[in-house]
Amino acid sequence: MTATNAIPVGILGASGYTGAELVRLLAHHPNVEIRAVTADRKAGRPMAEVFPHLAAVGLPALSAIEDTDFAALDTVFLGLPHGTTQEVVAALPGHLRVIDLSADFRLRDPALYKQWYGHDHRAPAHQKQAVYGLTEHAREAIRAARLIACPGCYPTAGMMPLIPLLKAKLVAADDIIIDAKSGVSGAGRAEKEANLFAEISEGIHAYGIANHRHAPEIEQELSLAAGTPITVSFTPHLVPMNRGILATIYVRLANGAAVDDLHGALASAYEGEPFVRVLPRGVAPATRHVRGSNHCLIGVFPDRQPGRAILVSAIDNLVKGAAGQAVQNFNLVAGLAETTALEQEALFP
Amino acid sequence: MTATNAIPVGILGASGYTGAELVRLLAHHPNVEIRAVTADRKAGRPMAEVFPHLAAVGLPALSAIEDTDFAALDTVFLGLPHGTTQEVVAALPGHLRVIDLSADFRLRDPALYKQWYGHDHRAPAHQKQAVYGLTEHAREAIRAARLIACPGCYPTAGMMPLIPLLKAKLVAADDIIIDAKSGVSGAGRAEKEANLFAEISEGIHAYGIANHRHAPEIEQELSLAAGTPITVSFTPHLVPMNRGILATIYVRLANGAAVDDLHGALASAYEGEPFVRVLPRGVAPATRHVRGSNHCLIGVFPDRQPGRAILVSAIDNLVKGAAGQAVQNFNLVAGLAETTALEQEALFP
Amino acid sequence: MTATNAIPVGILGASGYTGAELVRLLAHHPNVEIRAVTADRKAGRPMAEVFPHLAAVGLPALSAIEDTDFAALDTVFLGLPHGTTQEVVAALPGHLRVIDLSADFRLRDPALYKQWYGHDHRAPAHQKQAVYGLTEHAREAIRAARLIACPGCYPTAGMMPLIPLLKAKLVAADDIIIDAKSGVSGAGRAEKEANLFAEISEGIHAYGIANHRHAPEIEQELSLAAGTPITVSFTPHLVPMNRGILATIYVRLANGAAVDDLHGALASAYEGEPFVRVLPRGVAPATRHVRGSNHCLIGVFPDRQPGRAILVSAIDNLVKGAAGQAVQNFNLVAGLAETTALEQEALFP
Amino acid sequence: MTATNAIPVGILGASGYTGAELVRLLAHHPNVEIRAVTADRKAGRPMAEVFPHLAAVGLPALSAIEDTDFAALDTVFLGLPHGTTQEVVAALPGHLRVIDLSADFRLRDPALYKQWYGHDHRAPAHQKQAVYGLTEHAREAIRAARLIACPGCYPTAGMMPLIPLLKAKLVAADDIIIDAKSGVSGAGRAEKEANLFAEISEGIHAYGIANHRHAPEIEQELSLAAGTPITVSFTPHLVPMNRGILATIYVRLANGAAVDDLHGALASAYEGEPFVRVLPRGVAPATRHVRGSNHCLIGVFPDRQPGRAILVSAIDNLVKGAAGQAVQNFNLVAGLAETTALEQEALFP
Repeated sequence: MTATNAIPVGILGASGYTGAELVRLLAHHPNVEIRAVTADRKAGRPMAEVFPHLAAVGLPALSAIEDTDFAALDTVFLGLPHGTTQEVVAALPGHLRVIDLSADFRLRDPALYKQWYGHDHRAPAHQKQAVYGLTEHAREAIRAARLIACPGCYPTAGMMPLIPLLKAKLVAADDIIIDAKSGVSGAGRAEKEANLFAEISEGIHAYGIANHRHAPEIEQELSLAAGTPITVSFTPHLVPMNRGILATIYVRLANGAAVDDLHGALASAYEGEPFVRVLPRGVAPATRHVRGSNHCLIGVFPDRQPGRAILVSAIDNLVKGAAGQAVQNFNLVAGLAETTALEQEALFP
Repeated sequence: MTATNAIPVGILGASGYTGAELVRLLAHHPNVEIRAVTADRKAGRPMAEVFPHLAAVGLPALSAIEDTDFAALDTVFLGLPHGTTQEVVAALPGHLRVIDLSADFRLRDPALYKQWYGHDHRAPAHQKQAVYGLTEHAREAIRAARLIACPGCYPTAGMMPLIPLLKAKLVAADDIIIDAKSGVSGAGRAEKEANLFAEISEGIHAYGIANHRHAPEIEQELSLAAGTPITVSFTPHLVPMNRGILATIYVRLANGAAVDDLHGALASAYEGEPFVRVLPRGVAPATRHVRGSNHCLIGVFPDRQPGRAILVSAIDNLVKGAAGQAVQNFNLVAGLAETTALEQEALFP
Repeated sequence: MTATNAIPVGILGASGYTGAELVRLLAHHPNVEIRAVTADRKAGRPMAEVFPHLAAVGLPALSAIEDTDFAALDTVFLGLPHGTTQEVVAALPGHLRVIDLSADFRLRDPALYKQWYGHDHRAPAHQKQAVYGLTEHAREAIRAARLIACPGCYPTAGMMPLIPLLKAKLVAADDIIIDAKSGVSGAGRAEKEANLFAEISEGIHAYGIANHRHAPEIEQELSLAAGTPITVSFTPHLVPMNRGILATIYVRLANGAAVDDLHGALASAYEGEPFVRVLPRGVAPATRHVRGSNHCLIGVFPDRQPGRAILVSAIDNLVKGAAGQAVQNFNLVAGLAETTALEQEALFP
Repeated sequence: MTATNAIPVGILGASGYTGAELVRLLAHHPNVEIRAVTADRKAGRPMAEVFPHLAAVGLPALSAIEDTDFAALDTVFLGLPHGTTQEVVAALPGHLRVIDLSADFRLRDPALYKQWYGHDHRAPAHQKQAVYGLTEHAREAIRAARLIACPGCYPTAGMMPLIPLLKAKLVAADDIIIDAKSGVSGAGRAEKEANLFAEISEGIHAYGIANHRHAPEIEQELSLAAGTPITVSFTPHLVPMNRGILATIYVRLANGAAVDDLHGALASAYEGEPFVRVLPRGVAPATRHVRGSNHCLIGVFPDRQPGRAILVSAIDNLVKGAAGQAVQNFNLVAGLAETTALEQEALFP
């Protein structure tokens, strides 16, 4: 881990699940050295105590952000809570490359941000510079970026099948329904009654119906792809599993397109992509097949209703939906093979 | 259990999950005596061995159907596999009331049956007489029926919110999308690789996309309610939990209707119903709140897309979606209070 | 629920899992009317909001203890946190019968209490009067008691097989090892990181090794049964399931006893007991067979090590291990059939 | 994967969980090329269909054993069912190095084998040559072996803490109790009712009490370590999780030893071991902290009963308990760093 030419990085917010996942992936990155891990309430504690599964990684103890020597770092990954990241970013030294996993820099429109988060953005200058880092669809911009806003887990799952189809105008822009199902790690490690084992196990429910904060992010990017403003129906559900997002997406075919056209367009859009796999016709993705991996699986199906199709995508919310995509973006920026440190197969069962 | 005036019943197919659930509910029914339980491969074995959780119920040993003394019975409940029930029913003595939980008598149109099941119906005369037993919407017919085809679990969850709205013409008949999520007990107790713990746990996937056999059943009944032929989009998913179905239903408002109108129509349609609860605006149902109970919870939400709404319903697939509804129908036919033996609260956590 | 001669009861601490379970069981008790449900932080909220699965029960809103009209009550059930119960009990009007589910009154020796809980008991007079309510082994005392301290969930599971064997001197008193495995609801509804779904799911661990607070309670009662002071080895484990305790107990045979003698002694000790089932030789109990029921299953096995035996018991920690046993004790005190409101079969799957 | 000097290997029995796990680990082994994967009933099918999570690995299709070109292979890993492996091994060409994950070659005594498996061993000559491959305790023999019998998952978990203590005579040899808890993947992918999701979820039970086939294997190796014949009490339990074994081991201190002596002996026995971590005093291992990794965690605790101690160990049954240890042995034999391809951190949550 201490190769002489390793890139020194820091992970801010390392006591949450995305922080831990960044450590898991970066610990064996041949070009990276983790020099700092920070946590707020848990500063001073060894990582082995906060995350015993990472005890074998030689890590510095958790520190407070204000005690971190940023001069020694090249890149920082931020796994901080939404709303708290913008002020931290604004205060970071200018030489740092910033890869943010929070929602703070994902919305480009300050008014939209305020509408959804209830306050003016506190780092508007940075907000303007931020690049939305859905890797497969923004490589050029990401390579040039200083501040990368990694997409949310739901948006990643929802947009991967939709962007190529909207660009190709194969599906109607005004009739998109995303029914998404997520594992519980997406809710973070905060101590909330709603996330207790006994409240989650043996049940499923929808939440944030029609008002989840990932909706505007999805709409922003899909509108860009379609070249026309898009409002989506987006309903997240909580599933009794640790990891994974499955998005079942209901679309109307446009311009006389057939389901085969959709399949063909996706297959060619993602040809050669190391992390995206468009499944053969009739094969449905399952989240368990991407558990722990950076893959996104996509299936395409005809609907019973004529003129409609169903798209299904599966990712691991903590990997392709968070830490994995962040490392993928880092690799891109650092001029490394995009798959570096991301080649593990899924862990099944 | 042996009250002198108890109604003698038999449960055919008692070694499956719906059979066991019938025993659980009927064991404490004050007007019922379980006189026969049959199983094919497990005939001869005591129920306490096949279902140890029912060991405290005083039950006869499992017998083969052909060894059953039907003359002593008044009513039979059938929890047999789809496709095998019709011949059994055709051979039953005529004095028996039959409450069938399989799919064999749910479709009224012989051609439609053949299309979905690949063979001509083997008891067409019975098929004609069968009443589709969605209790809240067919009381009169059920009371008069000799053969009741209890609805499938997915159809029950999907149709409870839709039927009143289609009848009232508050939602468009040509734009209905049902995204359903089920626990694993719905797949039965058959020894299949796909249902092993390690294949189900920690993951979710869609299956039977656009070709699940519950689709024609849903369409048959919704078409009847709407007075116009309906094709629905219906996608089932398998969730790592034992019990429960959550249906998330996407609809377009009709005739200038508002979301409040939908909520009002459902509330008044189900006013006084002991087992249906329309939740206050903004409250989402969860399957864990009906685990083991005969309740159906319904929530109504505005969509982000203008002119659309989202309906969410939750049932226990083995109770309201199978054995509970069967007992409810039995009570109706027998002239008993519909809630008899069905008053248990849900088991949470 | 409002029979004219129903006994008016209150449930203090109704916003926890044991409180909810008391409501579930008492809601359909033919001789009980729930007149008050209290909660501290959640006072003022309707029960349907705090526990939606109980929404169909007609309950008063949650109130604060100090706002409760105790004069109107005959019996109170206490599901309050350990340590807080003793002061509440001391302040209750004298006419009330008290059935306590906390640990506050289980230890008879004030010094032992102080040693384990770190402070002097705050209601020593009541502590002296309290009866330890392991129903099957203390009926006479329970019937005469004003204050019943219901046993902990682990002690119930551990002691049910051991007490008859120690009384019969069939197992050595100085070589008892209890390896217990519990579902997560036993940890309560408190917002703790350790009880989050993602921290519990897909894993098992031991906790409180050699210093869990249920150990002294077990030792107190086993010593009483054996007529000699007993120290046990007791190790609890947390299992990713909501309900259930399985206790695997390793014992040395005493006085030339054989494993058959143990089986025989248990079978005759529990003959006729409605809630205890000694399984046939070779049959192992499973917690899923008592989920939601008040049963205790017991299995007896020879060990590979000669002269030793293995006992296995299974209960639902929230029912026989908490609320069910409390209701059983209430029935006993009230002169009702002990099984009243406790006759539901287990919910499987 | 096709480095010119890569060692060509085959995986026989690649359609089971241990087979899939071998693929997962070996797919990224820098010195290995997987040239053949066999499966009996699934021969001819692509691996991507049998194990979709491995679709990204470039693998040959599954073949039948008899169609495999063994001349092209250097080493074969066997993940075949117990009882079927011995004949396969006997028929393999002599140049092959064989790493067997079944139980067929673990017992050295032919009479003991017959007693537990009900038939004479069918490859007695090979049985004699086989080396029991608990890596940390048999490196020299493994390096020289042609046929390595990898230990069972339960034995690995149970013996790792016990062997050093028995060798050092710190614990009594005649009073060892191993209470083990396993995830479900250990039961394999066979289609059995007992392993269905609905039969396993939300419950725990013991099985094979006092007659599980891993007992003689444990006793054989512990006896060797202790220099005296040992009979252990061994009770396995099935836990609703995919992966992991937790062994809680109850021992009596020998020769005036203290718990600190045990901790010290284990710490020094495993000093420098890359995959064994003796935890600080008071810290309990959890299976979730080794999920997907080759680590073994060990904790040491004083018992409440004086003169006794409690050892707790945790492994992933499919990694250190099966495929990981097999790869570790392969590395050893091949003269590679033992950690090659085994350095992934655990996947949590």
